[in-house]
Amino acid sequence: MPAVFRLVPDDAIEILDQTLLPHEERAVRIERVGALCEAIATLRIRGAPLLGLAGAAGMALAAARDGTDDGTLKRAADMIAGTRPTAVDLGFRVREALAFALRLPEPERVAALWQHAAQLQRDRTAEDAALSGFGAELLTERGAVLTHCNTGELATGGVGTALGVIIEAWRRGTLTRCYMTETRPLLQGARLTAWEVLRAGIPGTLLPDTAAGSLLASGAVRAVITGADRVAANGDSANKIGTYQLAALAARHGVPFYIAAPLSTIDPHCPDGSQIPIEMRDPGEVGGFGEARWSPAGVDAYNPAFDVTPAELIAAIVTERGVLWPPFEDGIARAFAERATA
Amino acid sequence: MPAVFRLVPDDAIEILDQTLLPHEERAVRIERVGALCEAIATLRIRGAPLLGLAGAAGMALAAARDGTDDGTLKRAADMIAGTRPTAVDLGFRVREALAFALRLPEPERVAALWQHAAQLQRDRTAEDAALSGFGAELLTERGAVLTHCNTGELATGGVGTALGVIIEAWRRGTLTRCYMTETRPLLQGARLTAWEVLRAGIPGTLLPDTAAGSLLASGAVRAVITGADRVAANGDSANKIGTYQLAALAARHGVPFYIAAPLSTIDPHCPDGSQIPIEMRDPGEVGGFGEARWSPAGVDAYNPAFDVTPAELIAAIVTERGVLWPPFEDGIARAFAERATA
Repeated sequence: MPAVFRLVPDDAIEILDQTLLPHEERAVRIERVGALCEAIATLRIRGAPLLGLAGAAGMALAAARDGTDDGTLKRAADMIAGTRPTAVDLGFRVREALAFALRLPEPERVAALWQHAAQLQRDRTAEDAALSGFGAELLTERGAVLTHCNTGELATGGVGTALGVIIEAWRRGTLTRCYMTETRPLLQGARLTAWEVLRAGIPGTLLPDTAAGSLLASGAVRAVITGADRVAANGDSANKIGTYQLAALAARHGVPFYIAAPLSTIDPHCPDGSQIPIEMRDPGEVGGFGEARWSPAGVDAYNPAFDVTPAELIAAIVTERGVLWPPFEDGIARAFAERATA
Repeated sequence: MPAVFRLVPDDAIEILDQTLLPHEERAVRIERVGALCEAIATLRIRGAPLLGLAGAAGMALAAARDGTDDGTLKRAADMIAGTRPTAVDLGFRVREALAFALRLPEPERVAALWQHAAQLQRDRTAEDAALSGFGAELLTERGAVLTHCNTGELATGGVGTALGVIIEAWRRGTLTRCYMTETRPLLQGARLTAWEVLRAGIPGTLLPDTAAGSLLASGAVRAVITGADRVAANGDSANKIGTYQLAALAARHGVPFYIAAPLSTIDPHCPDGSQIPIEMRDPGEVGGFGEARWSPAGVDAYNPAFDVTPAELIAAIVTERGVLWPPFEDGIARAFAERATA
């Protein structure tokens, strides 16, 4: 089975083309920065942490293929980061790799950038594994879990965040089934999570986003767990559109709702959810998918990328450093203080 | 513009082929019972009350084209009702028309069955109009409304139930916008309601089912209104999957949630929602649409046709005889007592 992301040092990056999933598992060998940018722009590779990894690897590719002088590396950094300007991890990891390289003499840059990318991949893997272990400790009672969107290896390059927790609980024998929403409009649940869950050998059940209330009311689910794109200092969490309503329904039925997110997702300078800007996406994503249009031409659409789940609906936030419990202000402040002194 | 449903007495039925909406408005002339059954089975015509009308008209078609003897009419009734055995209105209206015809001498049956179908269509139209008027009185404060699934002329043959209320509020100048969910898995909102709302000249905004919580939290909506497939004696209401979660989210944000349903939908012998059987539909409807498959082969799906909204989440039930308020037991019992003596 092709790897989701693989470094071939001094030579290339291999990625699994995510646009062909779940129907075809095709590895794509990327040897030039231009091809990497095309792969990022067309979503062959996606997911915030995985894009960060791709960005760091892209800087190694630029040095190996195009030249190690400052000008070449700076142009490559601008080009890679510019493919998806709203992808924070991508820009951050590209600038980090650039700054790292510029401090070194030119002859060392190629090898150092490949090592830098390889270390980042090891760190990502270790971070996901640590988070998944802490999360699995919340799921010691046997039962089924509901998740939303895609938070597995296809998104992070490691075992995943929320899906990493689910996979770890399956390994420990405490998970009986993973329920997954389709996740309209981009259908990451139907396309990607369903593929990852089957690949992991976990009994998986897909549901329309409309059926989550019915499922929670039925008592079939003992926990809901999702990732987060950004967590405010008070615990309010922005994540894929539809997360908030799952959290609200879980609360109504006494089912715990967990967020699984690395500390890098937490913004201690953002006081609460009202300060998180919500990107509005192309209305054309609603009322159709791919080539298909189901809705009449000319209909307007409401298509926010994210929604905000208030902290009061979140039972715990699982990070790679441990589990944060309400009130989240204290735990978040402590985690950042510990990290600063670590 | 072709009519949604039109009787051509002694000759044919004309329907709008709903499978081609919203992209093409094609009238189909139906001259034989076999063609009607095909149109019902393939969902060219759908919606519980509209199917009832089609069933009554189909009996007139059978008498006009195939013969007026008891055997021919009984065979036609079995054939039409058998095309969608779970469509209660269809079977009810077919049996009603059959019983009506069997009481008449053979030479009168053709004309009487056409008149019977025409009267049913007038009754449906009057019922929807009365319901819509009562419902619009709940929406006297200017604002936007959110609805789910399809409850317009395409479903009822009249102006509609929930969508009839919305159209009437628009006529009265109190509606500013109609928000509509896509309504996975069959996308009736994206395909049919969006078409009807645009056709009525109402500003319409489509949203993924995932975005309803975000929309309600934003304060943009001042009421949610849907239809119902079956209402129990205590007011618990079964409707299209996804209705319950809209009602729960509306309650969380202090937005009134209304059901619009004719008295024929209320079952005074069903004590509460726990007694309403929920049909499980083909798992293949989840993870794809039409020819498109988004999910991997072999994934299981949870695909209930309906969910149950508990009465405590329903602000009012709008019927053709007036508005029922909580506690619904009393109003429902009174409405049925009045109807029995009317």
